[in-house]
Amino acid sequence: MQAVEWTGHSLRYLDQTELPFRESFSDATDPQDVYDAIRRLAIRGAPLIGIAAAYAAALAARALRPETPRTQAEGVLRTFLEHFASARPTAVNLRWALERAQTRLRSQQWTTAGEIAVLFEQEAMAIHEEDRRSCETIGRLGADLIPPDAAVLTHCNTGFLATGGDGTALNVIRHAFARGLVRRVYVDETRPLLQGSRLTAWELRNLGIPSTLITDSTAAFLMSRAMVQAVVVGADRIAANGDVANKIGTYSLAVAARRHGIPMLVAAPFSTFDVSLRSGEEIPIEERHGREVTRIGSVSIAPEDTPVYAPAFDVTPAELISALITDRGVLRPPYAGAIRSLGQQGGP
Amino acid sequence: MQAVEWTGHSLRYLDQTELPFRESFSDATDPQDVYDAIRRLAIRGAPLIGIAAAYAAALAARALRPETPRTQAEGVLRTFLEHFASARPTAVNLRWALERAQTRLRSQQWTTAGEIAVLFEQEAMAIHEEDRRSCETIGRLGADLIPPDAAVLTHCNTGFLATGGDGTALNVIRHAFARGLVRRVYVDETRPLLQGSRLTAWELRNLGIPSTLITDSTAAFLMSRAMVQAVVVGADRIAANGDVANKIGTYSLAVAARRHGIPMLVAAPFSTFDVSLRSGEEIPIEERHGREVTRIGSVSIAPEDTPVYAPAFDVTPAELISALITDRGVLRPPYAGAIRSLGQQGGP
Repeated sequence: MQAVEWTGHSLRYLDQTELPFRESFSDATDPQDVYDAIRRLAIRGAPLIGIAAAYAAALAARALRPETPRTQAEGVLRTFLEHFASARPTAVNLRWALERAQTRLRSQQWTTAGEIAVLFEQEAMAIHEEDRRSCETIGRLGADLIPPDAAVLTHCNTGFLATGGDGTALNVIRHAFARGLVRRVYVDETRPLLQGSRLTAWELRNLGIPSTLITDSTAAFLMSRAMVQAVVVGADRIAANGDVANKIGTYSLAVAARRHGIPMLVAAPFSTFDVSLRSGEEIPIEERHGREVTRIGSVSIAPEDTPVYAPAFDVTPAELISALITDRGVLRPPYAGAIRSLGQQGGP
Repeated sequence: MQAVEWTGHSLRYLDQTELPFRESFSDATDPQDVYDAIRRLAIRGAPLIGIAAAYAAALAARALRPETPRTQAEGVLRTFLEHFASARPTAVNLRWALERAQTRLRSQQWTTAGEIAVLFEQEAMAIHEEDRRSCETIGRLGADLIPPDAAVLTHCNTGFLATGGDGTALNVIRHAFARGLVRRVYVDETRPLLQGSRLTAWELRNLGIPSTLITDSTAAFLMSRAMVQAVVVGADRIAANGDVANKIGTYSLAVAARRHGIPMLVAAPFSTFDVSLRSGEEIPIEERHGREVTRIGSVSIAPEDTPVYAPAFDVTPAELISALITDRGVLRPPYAGAIRSLGQQGGP
């Protein structure tokens, strides 16, 4: 099973809002459907939304008559790509994938819509394949950092559902488990949208890795009772100084992990780094609708008009992060120099 | 409205599991109904379950024929009181109220079931009235510790729904709001049973105090953005050294508050102190059924057979607590000596 799959003429995706109770697939041929799927988190996970956006660009070009001349097609597609970035503001992989499509759009390689459609499709498949390899590298390198006989804690979902391959943080856990290092995974349920209980617990069960679900605020208590030996999470954007924006709740884990001397590991491909931002303070934090807190599925748990503050992400300062596990190597603090030289080094 | 009310022959209680959508009252004449109501959290909050247990003792004595002689009644009632403590193991107020009933039971003041029923009723009403006054003192003393123009964060529910009066931590907030010190209250939803979103948000709305609901793991992020100036919570048991057992998630808040230099205030009556325990490590931590995490109301959010670890409480070490606000005065660290002399000092 894959979270998204290019059929040659459509993007087939698993609707993650239906998990773990229904494995429901949809075929998008209209690029706006992909936008909506990302917006409502049917397709989610920083690397995966980049991949889906790249395929959406191919769908947008295919929606034009193939013989449409560049003079007519270019503006339409540029506007589409600019608009698409608004689907989710925090994860930089989305912007980065769209920028790669923009580079193709600006290139001299095409004269008709049919030609740019092929280029977009090639670019999307390249991004997808690169992410598969990134996941593999991250899993392999990250597993080296897991202590033996560890109970590992993770937050949100960073597995195959979040990427084009086998995951980032969850793939670190998977590789470490295969090497016999991981005894158990504690899964934060990850309020409000419960990516932990709905998605990560489901992935771990399918992988046969022993896991225990906890509420998010149980994590610090586990640490205080020496029940957790490492925390591994993903990232939605990493600034030039190593500050990490990730799912709300990550910062809280990092503060508790520091108090208890537990390694706080962040796993993400290099496409997650945004070196144009000096620090995490500059990362835009998406706010979600209060309904995502006052309702669970179709059930109200508080009156609909309850005032709610629902940031989707928080920022963990670099000083609380023990290592950044990337597809170009493992970075240790201080991060600024390491991130700079990684950017110059190019692909793995 | 009162959370529990003695009618003279029954205990009328608000079923808190139905809030905020239904204000449903039940009349218990069978003491086992009170036990069950405490067990399923229809009656909850450390001080309130002590009060309810005291009334349950009166119901148990009333269930015997009034002329039943002491030789027959005493053993039955002793067993009942011993059994009742198992309803919730962490909150010490329950045990303390039952101990006060046991003292009456051992006294030479009665010879028939009818007489001990009257004594139990008097004792329950005294406990209830003392708690009312405790709440008032705690609210008044605690408000002195709230800085001006503060956004205050609270966890779980500590208002009139949790006590025999106007609350502990929530009454501190209420008094501080009345003095113009509180700008806004951030309410942790308090997973898994959502006492924050269901009960505290509802109480604050009824009181006309501006509040904003957040998921529990948003709290640390708010602190990092200087959006919170004080944390005020209640307690279920406080050890002789000042370590506090309270709703799961409290420890996480305390760790984050310390990092950000934000006062971490704990409000509880002296009946919450258990000086027989040297430290928080000795406090028994109640584990709840995994269903409380995998279901919300009648809705499953994860497969029923998902392994879950669901401690209802955690322990915050005394060193992370800025002040203990009690009905016998405000304690500052180091707590051990202050708690010892408070115990010797007697009632307020």
